[in-house]
Amino acid sequence: MSKSREQRVTKGTANSQYRAFEPVVKKVKLSNEYLSRKICPSIQAAVRACGLEDGMTVSFHHSYRGGDFVLNMVMDVLAGMGFHNLTVAASSLSGCHDPMIAHIRNGVVRKIYTSGLRGKLGEFISQGHMEEPVQIHSHGGRVQLMQSGELVPDVALLAVPSCDSFGNACGYIGNNICGSLGYAKADAQFARKVVLVTEAVKPYPHSPAGVYQDQVDYIVVVDAVGDSSKIGAGSTRMTTNPRELLIARRAADVIEKSGYFQNGFSLQTGSGGASLAVTRFLEDKMRRRNISASFALGGITASMVDLHEKGLIEKLIDVQSFDSTATASLARNPGHIEISANQYANLGSKGASVERLDVVVLSALEIDTEFNVNVITGSDGIIRGASGGHCDTASGARLAMIVAPLVRGRIPTVVKDVLTTVTPGEHIDILVTDHGIAVNPKRPKLAARLHEAGIETVPIEALYQRAVMLTGEPDAIRFTERPVAMIRYRDGSVIDTVYQIAATTEG
Amino acid sequence: MSKSREQRVTKGTANSQYRAFEPVVKKVKLSNEYLSRKICPSIQAAVRACGLEDGMTVSFHHSYRGGDFVLNMVMDVLAGMGFHNLTVAASSLSGCHDPMIAHIRNGVVRKIYTSGLRGKLGEFISQGHMEEPVQIHSHGGRVQLMQSGELVPDVALLAVPSCDSFGNACGYIGNNICGSLGYAKADAQFARKVVLVTEAVKPYPHSPAGVYQDQVDYIVVVDAVGDSSKIGAGSTRMTTNPRELLIARRAADVIEKSGYFQNGFSLQTGSGGASLAVTRFLEDKMRRRNISASFALGGITASMVDLHEKGLIEKLIDVQSFDSTATASLARNPGHIEISANQYANLGSKGASVERLDVVVLSALEIDTEFNVNVITGSDGIIRGASGGHCDTASGARLAMIVAPLVRGRIPTVVKDVLTTVTPGEHIDILVTDHGIAVNPKRPKLAARLHEAGIETVPIEALYQRAVMLTGEPDAIRFTERPVAMIRYRDGSVIDTVYQIAATTEG
Repeated sequence: MSKSREQRVTKGTANSQYRAFEPVVKKVKLSNEYLSRKICPSIQAAVRACGLEDGMTVSFHHSYRGGDFVLNMVMDVLAGMGFHNLTVAASSLSGCHDPMIAHIRNGVVRKIYTSGLRGKLGEFISQGHMEEPVQIHSHGGRVQLMQSGELVPDVALLAVPSCDSFGNACGYIGNNICGSLGYAKADAQFARKVVLVTEAVKPYPHSPAGVYQDQVDYIVVVDAVGDSSKIGAGSTRMTTNPRELLIARRAADVIEKSGYFQNGFSLQTGSGGASLAVTRFLEDKMRRRNISASFALGGITASMVDLHEKGLIEKLIDVQSFDSTATASLARNPGHIEISANQYANLGSKGASVERLDVVVLSALEIDTEFNVNVITGSDGIIRGASGGHCDTASGARLAMIVAPLVRGRIPTVVKDVLTTVTPGEHIDILVTDHGIAVNPKRPKLAARLHEAGIETVPIEALYQRAVMLTGEPDAIRFTERPVAMIRYRDGSVIDTVYQIAATTEG
Repeated sequence: MSKSREQRVTKGTANSQYRAFEPVVKKVKLSNEYLSRKICPSIQAAVRACGLEDGMTVSFHHSYRGGDFVLNMVMDVLAGMGFHNLTVAASSLSGCHDPMIAHIRNGVVRKIYTSGLRGKLGEFISQGHMEEPVQIHSHGGRVQLMQSGELVPDVALLAVPSCDSFGNACGYIGNNICGSLGYAKADAQFARKVVLVTEAVKPYPHSPAGVYQDQVDYIVVVDAVGDSSKIGAGSTRMTTNPRELLIARRAADVIEKSGYFQNGFSLQTGSGGASLAVTRFLEDKMRRRNISASFALGGITASMVDLHEKGLIEKLIDVQSFDSTATASLARNPGHIEISANQYANLGSKGASVERLDVVVLSALEIDTEFNVNVITGSDGIIRGASGGHCDTASGARLAMIVAPLVRGRIPTVVKDVLTTVTPGEHIDILVTDHGIAVNPKRPKLAARLHEAGIETVPIEALYQRAVMLTGEPDAIRFTERPVAMIRYRDGSVIDTVYQIAATTEG
């Protein structure tokens, strides 16, 4: 099926049938020819210069989240050039990446590494349409896979809002800014060839840089690399849901009484309504007890920027900016620090910030009575989530808290056994729901501290029983024996497998 | 001669005779034990934790120049621990490193990689007291040697004024600040184990960082890592010598008329009186012609900071801060950018700033009628200089200019054949002396432009004849056939060899 390299290159070079796949590429005028040796006239030209071949690995970062244009743009070009059997290593995939389905069908894409899968692409994969199972990794685990040599991108194609003609790129200067280039930084460090796909070429030297001139091989200028306004959409919005706000308030109470709420404590909140809202409720408590945090980590949000600018959080350590306030803050606040995914969460790095974390507040699709957490598969068994920094931060933080409603509609969150384990229960310390709080029996001192402070807790089995009472015992989901995704733990090991759902919904 | 590892470790651990070699190490109090896993109580402990063995390579950076304490401090500790046959890879060595002589004599040090050698150590080596020739590399060439695998430090011991307990280090916050950690950054990138030797442990996360937490294995706190006041001493002082000022003024005239003095041009000046003074004379010309520079590169000086703050130089790209004004500017000026030696000058990096350079002004101990330059050996044949960024910038810049007095005392600068070639003449475009200006015949257009602008030039042979007239033909220096140093070009090749001087001055 796959074309030989010679055929493909000839076609890509000479045959105009592929022109249609090329996005609008800006003409860059530079005063001196020598300034532009890295700038390629098209994605095709850059890919060719990188020596990409069938079967190789291309990587992308997800700082534009649902507003990313570059992955689809590049994959269309690669399909047009006739490439086959590629591995796509995306730091995560969003609903906007449904066009990947066509490239899987056509054999352009053979294998996927990603932290997340959603939308029609998630359904498509759960229905068993890929020959090779998708490798789902955490944000830290991705860097570990690159470090171990399993996942070395041959060509990283990295969306940036601006760079200079030598490759110094900044994520928070330009039109469609994305903030921290945390995941791009890791790819730039480990990939064999690095192509920047940028909206603007600025005078040399462009600064402050997040990706550096000595990491970049080629540069392609396009009209738009993404839609900034969609970064804060979806899972990073601030909730107005009263149940989520109730949970967030309880979570803040727990943090206050947990023993970790001391001057200089550190904090991360994952995406998801209740999780994000916790920060807001901590402000009053911090003021009242005259406490400030040394740092907030992770996906940085508007709430965290607000507390930082009020002096309540000393530094923001940002691997990914979760909304427009956070992206703008990077340019404004010297205490807002851009870090790579290796510095954020990689178990194999010499120093990952998750190790320094006191409190992390995380979401869950499911949590079972052993505190194992599923953030990947929905109640129908279909992949619709992301591993993210979940297991990385849970492992590192001294207090790893799950916040979740006990039931969602007719679907229980607390279950006997999670469909898919992403984070093992041994690293989860406490669950806060709208129906009660359960402490992991492995943390008796934490339970005692909360008890002393007047915070009532219940065994997680009680929450499970209550969920069953509310929703009934859910029907077992039928799977085939065919694996569609491997859940890779942060050390690279396979912690669980997702199987093909038995009854496909495909028409 | 060398002790077995077991013997050594036992001695280092148990035998108090080695305590005397340990410098005063500060007691660091941290609120939480877990915060300190990287902090070692002593250099001994850090070295032991790194698994250093006889025959391995230890590396150091030279941002403290003549004020460095750490190299001597660490080498004394290693000698005390009984190590032998070590390779010392210093990014450069200054007069303050004469104590290395004892470690060479005692077999602690078997081999040296460095950009520079001066003082008694330079004499000692020129006298042939080392079994293995010293490897003299350029600043870019050092990174190339690390990248190629020839020179991979087993343990880098990096002096920093401040860091946090996880290893984020800043060169311009603290007591004895050194400014840019450019050379330390390269070592942190390539060394197997990295130890920070710091004066202060600051709250986590310390920022802005030049060396990062994911690059650092261990941290040792000492009273002082260097003497900041000695960074600007020696070769980076601003001259008051009227002859050097005359040369600098002529050099500025040449730059103005060279064709490269256009809006957005870029500039580097090496160390040495006349070279440093050129910047000062360019200011008037820039104002008069309404020209500003896009960047100044390299060792950053007070003059460059001055022009930057006046808006005449857009950005400062700093691999090494040459004086206290430059070190302080890094903390104050967002347009003052800290880069690594890999970004500065490595031929093998994906992008070295020297490639973007328009004009570089360099010094010379000797320049011959083929424009080959010697910046290493004195007129007595003894090593007393540094390769530095000389051949890197000369190769990269579009106008590579040498500024030097025609004679120094009774010693000619322009000679028939340089004693030692560090930078090949093909990369030198023009020589400016107090007795005339000579353009490399390979650059006829440059000569024509200067001629049109009314700047008189002479053949370099004429300058040579004039030098001979003033000083007489110097006596040939007598060398033995024994190599004492290999001059490595920036691509790693051996471009010249320095031999043992025949008549030693040793008593």
